[in-house]
Amino acid sequence: MNGQMMQQPLLISSLITHAERHHGDQEIVSRRVEGDIHRTTYRELAAQSRRLAKALAALGVGHGDRVATLAWNGYRHMALYYAVSGSGAVLHTLNPRLHPDQVVYIADHAEDTVLCFDMTFLPLVEAVAARLKTVKHFVAMTDRAHMPAASKIPNLLCFDEIVAAQDDRYDWPSFDENTASSLCYTSGTTGNPKGVLYSHRSTVLHTFAIAMPDALNCSARDSILPVVPMFHVNAWGLPYAGCMVGAKLVFPGPGLDGKSLFELFEAEKVTVSAGVPTVWQGLLAYMEANNARFSTMRRTVIGGSACPPAMMRAFQDKYDVQVIHAWGMTEMSPVGTAAILKGKHLAMDHEAQFAVQATQGRAVYGVDMKIIDAEGKSLPWDGKTSGELLVRGPWILQDYYRSEGGQPLVDGWFPTGDVATIDADGYMHITDRSKDVIKSGGEWIGSIDLENIAMAHPAVAMAACIAAFHPKWDERPLLVVMKKPGSEVTREELLGFFEGKIAKWWTPDDVVFVDAIPLGATGKMQKNKLREAFKNHQLPTT
Amino acid sequence: MNGQMMQQPLLISSLITHAERHHGDQEIVSRRVEGDIHRTTYRELAAQSRRLAKALAALGVGHGDRVATLAWNGYRHMALYYAVSGSGAVLHTLNPRLHPDQVVYIADHAEDTVLCFDMTFLPLVEAVAARLKTVKHFVAMTDRAHMPAASKIPNLLCFDEIVAAQDDRYDWPSFDENTASSLCYTSGTTGNPKGVLYSHRSTVLHTFAIAMPDALNCSARDSILPVVPMFHVNAWGLPYAGCMVGAKLVFPGPGLDGKSLFELFEAEKVTVSAGVPTVWQGLLAYMEANNARFSTMRRTVIGGSACPPAMMRAFQDKYDVQVIHAWGMTEMSPVGTAAILKGKHLAMDHEAQFAVQATQGRAVYGVDMKIIDAEGKSLPWDGKTSGELLVRGPWILQDYYRSEGGQPLVDGWFPTGDVATIDADGYMHITDRSKDVIKSGGEWIGSIDLENIAMAHPAVAMAACIAAFHPKWDERPLLVVMKKPGSEVTREELLGFFEGKIAKWWTPDDVVFVDAIPLGATGKMQKNKLREAFKNHQLPTT
Repeated sequence: MNGQMMQQPLLISSLITHAERHHGDQEIVSRRVEGDIHRTTYRELAAQSRRLAKALAALGVGHGDRVATLAWNGYRHMALYYAVSGSGAVLHTLNPRLHPDQVVYIADHAEDTVLCFDMTFLPLVEAVAARLKTVKHFVAMTDRAHMPAASKIPNLLCFDEIVAAQDDRYDWPSFDENTASSLCYTSGTTGNPKGVLYSHRSTVLHTFAIAMPDALNCSARDSILPVVPMFHVNAWGLPYAGCMVGAKLVFPGPGLDGKSLFELFEAEKVTVSAGVPTVWQGLLAYMEANNARFSTMRRTVIGGSACPPAMMRAFQDKYDVQVIHAWGMTEMSPVGTAAILKGKHLAMDHEAQFAVQATQGRAVYGVDMKIIDAEGKSLPWDGKTSGELLVRGPWILQDYYRSEGGQPLVDGWFPTGDVATIDADGYMHITDRSKDVIKSGGEWIGSIDLENIAMAHPAVAMAACIAAFHPKWDERPLLVVMKKPGSEVTREELLGFFEGKIAKWWTPDDVVFVDAIPLGATGKMQKNKLREAFKNHQLPTT
Repeated sequence: MNGQMMQQPLLISSLITHAERHHGDQEIVSRRVEGDIHRTTYRELAAQSRRLAKALAALGVGHGDRVATLAWNGYRHMALYYAVSGSGAVLHTLNPRLHPDQVVYIADHAEDTVLCFDMTFLPLVEAVAARLKTVKHFVAMTDRAHMPAASKIPNLLCFDEIVAAQDDRYDWPSFDENTASSLCYTSGTTGNPKGVLYSHRSTVLHTFAIAMPDALNCSARDSILPVVPMFHVNAWGLPYAGCMVGAKLVFPGPGLDGKSLFELFEAEKVTVSAGVPTVWQGLLAYMEANNARFSTMRRTVIGGSACPPAMMRAFQDKYDVQVIHAWGMTEMSPVGTAAILKGKHLAMDHEAQFAVQATQGRAVYGVDMKIIDAEGKSLPWDGKTSGELLVRGPWILQDYYRSEGGQPLVDGWFPTGDVATIDADGYMHITDRSKDVIKSGGEWIGSIDLENIAMAHPAVAMAACIAAFHPKWDERPLLVVMKKPGSEVTREELLGFFEGKIAKWWTPDDVVFVDAIPLGATGKMQKNKLREAFKNHQLPTT
């Protein structure tokens, strides 16, 4: 026997419609590639999205067709989020930081039919346009005045023109909520990128989950600035959450340096932000150098890679900004956990609370986790035993798009590739990527804890800990360090810095100093490149 | 093309499983019918729910069978919420305040197979047991020591015994999320009660919606005391929201007087509550008389019927408790709107903010509203034009259970029977029930505004405004007043009290004083009875 409630599919178009009807005058502010600040509202953006949906249909985009973007965070990109998915097509956000060959591979694999791009990426698009097998239309996301006088791209279309050519009389179509809505490729450090194909259902459910009080806690009183890019995992869902709750949205465009971000935070009275640690380093450095203070910022979500505890302390203790340490993956839409205190923690002292906040957090409702040993047996949630982390839930990947290999799930669970502990309260702590784990004499050493200690040293800008060959222990930790400009520190000082902070046998065997640590397209350290560079490194043997 | 995310049905069992795994030691505190305070945890309650599911199966309860309850808010009732729905049966919460004949009608109509009841309701159950056509098993929700020595009910079962007879090795079954989960009959003031049949999907989606920051704002740091009964519309969803977010739950059992409630609020460090205005009157009266102050309470949701502004001011201005004025219906699971400020309101002065809070609020995402005129035409959202309110959304009724009349929807929208305005920001204000509206010379007068003014008078305990026959204007407002014990006020003083607060022609034509205003089973004033009582009332004609 079924219930007798209305059957309404969970569709992305319902988010923009809700915002238009109930939060019509709420602002969406964007720093444009053109350099100026642009202001619009949910009412105008909803109308623009409908015009855009008609413009795409006029270009021949049909149900299920892929429309690609190469774009910063901004209102035109947001209109594409709703126009493309809302009309039943699939929004494919390309990562402009990838190598042109990878962009070509991904666009071909996705069979994109239209490519919309910010003017920043005109050189990239010109470099790859002739090689793209399926793209029929190229759209420059700008107005007529900023269109290039001449371009190598034939029949280059102007975003503002094709939108202006349509009226906004358009009814969002209704269809099955499991319909594909958007597509994002993982930035795997090995092998070809793999596509994650989200559905309307998974997107709307994930939006509920991230807006909840114990996740990103989004309300109509917030001004939200997603630093995390809309070209990667849908900016962690914030362009959807904004509509769901009627928050003000502030898009930084290409201005991700500390000064540009800080000025936008202040000018637009931003209360909430979200981004990866590397971006925050730039912001904190700017604030430090300029003795700056936030006026309205209350909290920021930090994820993508583990947030160094020193960064958490800077935000919380110095700038009075709550850090919500979060964890997820492209394959998880992306949010899985958030490190928010429970009631039982409120009476604890500062350091005990900090220890909870420094974990990757507890699962939001909808996500379930387990850790397993090499034989697949579930391990205890004791905060000590570490094992491979597996997850499941309605916004977690079932299979990769057009995957050619075997299916990724293990007994219905998605293996994250992370190694983690989970404590009795459900707080998960990632100790390593399974491929980065250091196996010393049969025991595991978690590289992330070692990196966090090194990065708390005042002279260290960035640190990576990798496995180096050792004749007796098979592997031992090698610390690769990038110093802060103008700072000095010796190998011996750094190794001494670990004393008392970790089990003695976890202490790295050696330190090497480098000019730069290679970062991937989403800002993560590429440890595979470091392992390759130092594969012949001779550890001191004592 | 479909997305490629996991297909996991939204099931009520996933809520208790989440709470068990991630918030296992969080407390559930209940004041029992036996008089004592009982403490359990999500971990224990989850195990108890599994034992109970097995016990019900052993009684022959199968998929889709209805299991009825007549019970206060408490942990045994909560175990039934999860055991019954989680196992695929349908939880039918009966309202013990209904007349025994209505209880019989409803249980027969629902074809309940098992009836579980708190000992408070033993006399009621004994009175109706022989007349119930489909109930095969009666379960007293108590332990062996409190079972009646003798009962007119044959083979009366003991809840604690049948639960203890099972182990907790039970896997919640998986099934279609549209499966019926629970059933609640409306307390219509006319005609037979009608059943609203919720689904797992509608329940889980509604739970997300009510836990959001701009609705009831529930987190793992909250201690939530639902005063609103679990026997009516699932206590507004709080027993589900508690599991979703890992909040402490505090159940008041039968102790709904001001003293019992206040003591429980303080002892269990309650931060959030929810109830109808009539319950809060008792609490506020107790606090006033005892000069009491809340230590931990931060906000309360008030709905079910319009909250008198005087009550909102008492909570907010005197006791520093934020009032979240909310609106919904049994047919809406129930929450539709909540009066939470937007960012634009934060700079406004106290009175301007209060005016926003005093409305029924803005729609939570998932609910859409419109107001229409007599011809069905949509009316403007200007805050002035009033019309019949219609709603739609995935947790709003499609049709009544085993309904015999026509289907209730109008072009896919559910007509609420309320008359309301909606302003440009989406804030809805109910001016009347459509059947209570007073039609004076062709113009509508909203009775609720008049009642709120009257109830702000210090001598008035309760006031109802009804239409009385008028030879010239057809109908004119008649104010029916119940005075506070020991307070005095004259007709002339009361009518003078309206001066300057409302358009002069809205002022009631007359006042009658009564000893009591009849209340329905969910605490709402029964104006139809008043209209009947005063149908021959002679208004003064001037």
